[in-house]
Amino acid sequence: MANPLTLAIDAMGGDNEAAFVVPGLDIALVRNPDMRLILFGDGGLIERRLAQHARVRAASSVVHCDITVSMREKPSEALRRGRRSSSMWRAIEAVKLGEADAAVSAGNTGALMAMAKFVLKTMAQIERPAIAAIWPTVRGESIVLDVGATIGADAQQLVDFAVMGAAMAQAVFGITRPRVGLLNIGVEEVKGLEEVRRAGQMLRASDLPGLEYHGFVEGADLGRGTVDVVVTEGFSGNIALKTAEGTAKQIAAYLRAAIARSIWARIGYVIASSAFRALREKMDPRRANGGVFLGLNGMVIKSHGGTDPQGFASAVDLAVDMARSNLVSRIAADIGAFHAVAVPTPVAVEPKAAAS
Amino acid sequence: MANPLTLAIDAMGGDNEAAFVVPGLDIALVRNPDMRLILFGDGGLIERRLAQHARVRAASSVVHCDITVSMREKPSEALRRGRRSSSMWRAIEAVKLGEADAAVSAGNTGALMAMAKFVLKTMAQIERPAIAAIWPTVRGESIVLDVGATIGADAQQLVDFAVMGAAMAQAVFGITRPRVGLLNIGVEEVKGLEEVRRAGQMLRASDLPGLEYHGFVEGADLGRGTVDVVVTEGFSGNIALKTAEGTAKQIAAYLRAAIARSIWARIGYVIASSAFRALREKMDPRRANGGVFLGLNGMVIKSHGGTDPQGFASAVDLAVDMARSNLVSRIAADIGAFHAVAVPTPVAVEPKAAAS
Repeated sequence: MANPLTLAIDAMGGDNEAAFVVPGLDIALVRNPDMRLILFGDGGLIERRLAQHARVRAASSVVHCDITVSMREKPSEALRRGRRSSSMWRAIEAVKLGEADAAVSAGNTGALMAMAKFVLKTMAQIERPAIAAIWPTVRGESIVLDVGATIGADAQQLVDFAVMGAAMAQAVFGITRPRVGLLNIGVEEVKGLEEVRRAGQMLRASDLPGLEYHGFVEGADLGRGTVDVVVTEGFSGNIALKTAEGTAKQIAAYLRAAIARSIWARIGYVIASSAFRALREKMDPRRANGGVFLGLNGMVIKSHGGTDPQGFASAVDLAVDMARSNLVSRIAADIGAFHAVAVPTPVAVEPKAAAS
Repeated sequence: MANPLTLAIDAMGGDNEAAFVVPGLDIALVRNPDMRLILFGDGGLIERRLAQHARVRAASSVVHCDITVSMREKPSEALRRGRRSSSMWRAIEAVKLGEADAAVSAGNTGALMAMAKFVLKTMAQIERPAIAAIWPTVRGESIVLDVGATIGADAQQLVDFAVMGAAMAQAVFGITRPRVGLLNIGVEEVKGLEEVRRAGQMLRASDLPGLEYHGFVEGADLGRGTVDVVVTEGFSGNIALKTAEGTAKQIAAYLRAAIARSIWARIGYVIASSAFRALREKMDPRRANGGVFLGLNGMVIKSHGGTDPQGFASAVDLAVDMARSNLVSRIAADIGAFHAVAVPTPVAVEPKAAAS
């Protein structure tokens, strides 16, 4: 870990010219006053923003980059155009070079993942990285992965996700043996994907010290917090994540409409306003802003592109947590230990004589 | 259609000995006083329940069945044990024999689908049936399918789901040309499943008169009501459905906790109670209770097993709507028309001489 803890910030990634980045860093610095920041992007623009945020200016150095990866660029295009010289690339590269402990970007997810894979490389024994989200539940929080890095996953990849998610739960929640569930469907006539079943068998058989395998969970278990880590492949994980966000917005709209209906409802709302503030905070998607890229040789955090200073500050908090807990080394150790147990070296067999 | 409209009711399917069935029929009969009911199940038990519901008794005939399919039975087991003589089988069979216009069961989904396929058979040109759910949105309601009949679907099957879902939207919502979207993930580095992309191309190319193809939608579009029909394969559809239900429950728990926190919040709640009643109604999963089996030669409606009389009445309402609108014939016609357009007969090619 760099000393003091240092984050590489892509100061250009995000909607609305990423104007939330510097104000978000200001909020995060109040909570983590000792961290250092390296801001990558348009030097003139960043300096103008820093002029209004003395705290951020004092904690930061600025590295000018000519190129900004756009939110709509295809990953291949972004890699071609933004390699070496874009703010996104340089922020990731700072992690690789050991100048920073983690990179944070609110830019184009596809481009960020493509560049992160290119620069940091996937860990030995991991075939595919995953994006992990922190999911608010009625009990607290869970980790859900993969929420969209790759479509489909075989049994071994799901098991790797389980091991990585458990390591993250140890780091973020401080649980020694996080409970891990595999997302499946409970409809009886279809007994679930073959890969999910096989992953369950593998997790049960391997009986890892760092996680407790709970079994299958369903979509409804996500909000219930039935387990600490929910594992699924990226298509259904992304759909679950977006569906939950959409449902929360939908209910908030119902609530607003219900309250607007009558003067008594509005009066009641005013009287109960502290309760509604608490509810809004619980439902606030900014509190859980930040997708963690797992399975790479370095820590990259993705913030929502359309976030605000509060939301960006949450993503920065998460990056600080991940860096402090040395998540990358923990995962490398756990994955190494798992593969050592689960994949025994084939015993050399004497070749038989062809005629016997 | 039977005259008067007749429903076959599996009076034994559901949790808690299906005690909600007869009271639920009582509620549904107020809204549809002319319908006839055939109740399949334990004759003695049903008669005792009917004794308390004169309205249902007057509208019903009872067919005694010795066997009840249990909620935990595997479909294969249920088929073996419950074939011909279970209440579930007999209710479906009444549809096949033209004695009833639709069957309603709150029993084991897997067994119900297996028996429905066995008895009614899948429509010509449909490879796989789907379960469609009515999804409440901020704009009203949408149809989402498949929510769990089968895992995975190729492009042609997704297109068939689109055609069936559009026919159902015409019938339920009275829209001439429902907007149809394919559920996909918006993360840029993965451009979505190959099958989803190909289904999109097929829908765009075929330009069907009965539906307007909107393009891809994401999980967040479900609650938004972006389209009238959302098409996906059963694994992700089931996960989306359960995740949305779970999120709604989670937010309701947050709301209760927020209101319990202070006396002022409770006072405000009382004053705004009509608003909260409206909200609860909007969020009430019983209002949209009922999965419609599409793609079979007959109409079967699945109610939640753990529902109550109100919820079972909603499933019965849905069965009445589906039967009145002749959904099965509509779908057969639309699927026939689609396959006639979309799958041109291969042109016979003269075999070439081997040497040329």
